[in-house]
Amino acid sequence: MQTIVLIVAYDGTPFSGWQRQAGARTIQGCLEAAISKINNAPTTVRGASRTDAGVHAQYQIAAFETDRNYPPDRWVQALNATTPPEIFIRRALVAPTAFEPRFASRGKHYRYTLYEGLFVPPHLLNRVARTRKLDIDNMRLAAQYLIGTHDFSSFRAIDCQAKSPIRTITQIDITRRSDAFVYAPFPIDDAHQGDESLIEIDVFGTAFLKQMVRIIVGTLIEFGLGRPAAEMIAIRDAKNRTAAGETAPASGLTLVRSWSECDDWT
Amino acid sequence: MQTIVLIVAYDGTPFSGWQRQAGARTIQGCLEAAISKINNAPTTVRGASRTDAGVHAQYQIAAFETDRNYPPDRWVQALNATTPPEIFIRRALVAPTAFEPRFASRGKHYRYTLYEGLFVPPHLLNRVARTRKLDIDNMRLAAQYLIGTHDFSSFRAIDCQAKSPIRTITQIDITRRSDAFVYAPFPIDDAHQGDESLIEIDVFGTAFLKQMVRIIVGTLIEFGLGRPAAEMIAIRDAKNRTAAGETAPASGLTLVRSWSECDDWT
Repeated sequence: MQTIVLIVAYDGTPFSGWQRQAGARTIQGCLEAAISKINNAPTTVRGASRTDAGVHAQYQIAAFETDRNYPPDRWVQALNATTPPEIFIRRALVAPTAFEPRFASRGKHYRYTLYEGLFVPPHLLNRVARTRKLDIDNMRLAAQYLIGTHDFSSFRAIDCQAKSPIRTITQIDITRRSDAFVYAPFPIDDAHQGDESLIEIDVFGTAFLKQMVRIIVGTLIEFGLGRPAAEMIAIRDAKNRTAAGETAPASGLTLVRSWSECDDWT
Repeated sequence: MQTIVLIVAYDGTPFSGWQRQAGARTIQGCLEAAISKINNAPTTVRGASRTDAGVHAQYQIAAFETDRNYPPDRWVQALNATTPPEIFIRRALVAPTAFEPRFASRGKHYRYTLYEGLFVPPHLLNRVARTRKLDIDNMRLAAQYLIGTHDFSSFRAIDCQAKSPIRTITQIDITRRSDAFVYAPFPIDDAHQGDESLIEIDVFGTAFLKQMVRIIVGTLIEFGLGRPAAEMIAIRDAKNRTAAGETAPASGLTLVRSWSECDDWT
């Protein structure tokens, strides 16, 4: 019996989130179905992050047990061949010791991408959330009040199950990209670009509460529209979900990177 | 009555191609439905290129007539608001004279994107076609025999309706990109990239026959797999579809740019 660790990317659009649910197509469910077939026995897959429906991941960490003696690359090939195309196994590792992805986690980087423009171009559909023009300098000022270790009760979903609302955010970067078409899989004629921009909100932290990044982004948008930055202190200290802004749509969110004990194994 | 010219981008994945068809969702059909509603009369939209089902466009040129006196930006907004999100109106122009997109065309640039790897990562799904590792130097040699004005009967769909099979290809560029993740809307940890690459085949010409680029690409792949480059001459001179290779999948093809008389209007 050995433990296999997977580094998994996915386009969250067609899934009801990470977590297994009866009657719904989830990433965990699809991985478990494929692995159980190879293992010839029902197999549980544990993930480091429970991403919501529609949220994307570039670096989800997952683990499972197996009696098969496959080399790691064979797991990569077998699972890429048998899971939906929106799930992409980037890498597999044999764990040298017992491994629990959630407890082994050392931190995460989430990116939320806003599109400042009236209509989202096709190549960014399901990857961004649309917004009016925002004042990102004011958003940066407001974001500073969230850095550090705080009670983030104002920024957790009302059905969040975490025992403690205390979390640590180490960094929030807010960047405007005027090259909204940079991700387009074809060159763009500059003469026909408008003044649409992307705003990337990169949030780094040790761990996150349910919908925490999406609620932070929804709240930061209010500051982008002119709310005085210092009011973020009162929102944070209210420790009450109703003090914060709306939950930003899932489509704009990607789990970009996870850091974990398994980083030391290479 | 005035003629409006549209510059249109689309993700071709959910459409049965450009051309209107009873009972099928097409780009022309969606544009005509939206414009006819605004015109309050059935309206025909003429396009410069009839892209196949699943083929993408970054720069399709279309034209229609209207009695409405809207400024061009109002057409951009109204049509973006009422067509499917995979269709994106980039720009509208009022034609100073009568305008027929097909006759006004001065040339086109198509790009075909191949992915050299076993499994396509999620952010490139429906945007590439998968291939084994190819010898692009040999493909470049073979491609040179297609440059110039030739009878391209070997490279047209058997049901192609064009009267003449004579076309002019001005340039074919074949480029390997080792940054297959460059288009990903999130950064990638380099340490976890494999040796997957993209191969971009850029074809420039004055006009194209039905499926001509896809058949050229399917044939070039044979040369990428080792066929002697000079054999391209015999394929070309056979003037017979059966001499060439398979038609490459639609997903890899994008109409990147069209040149047209309307370029002079700005």
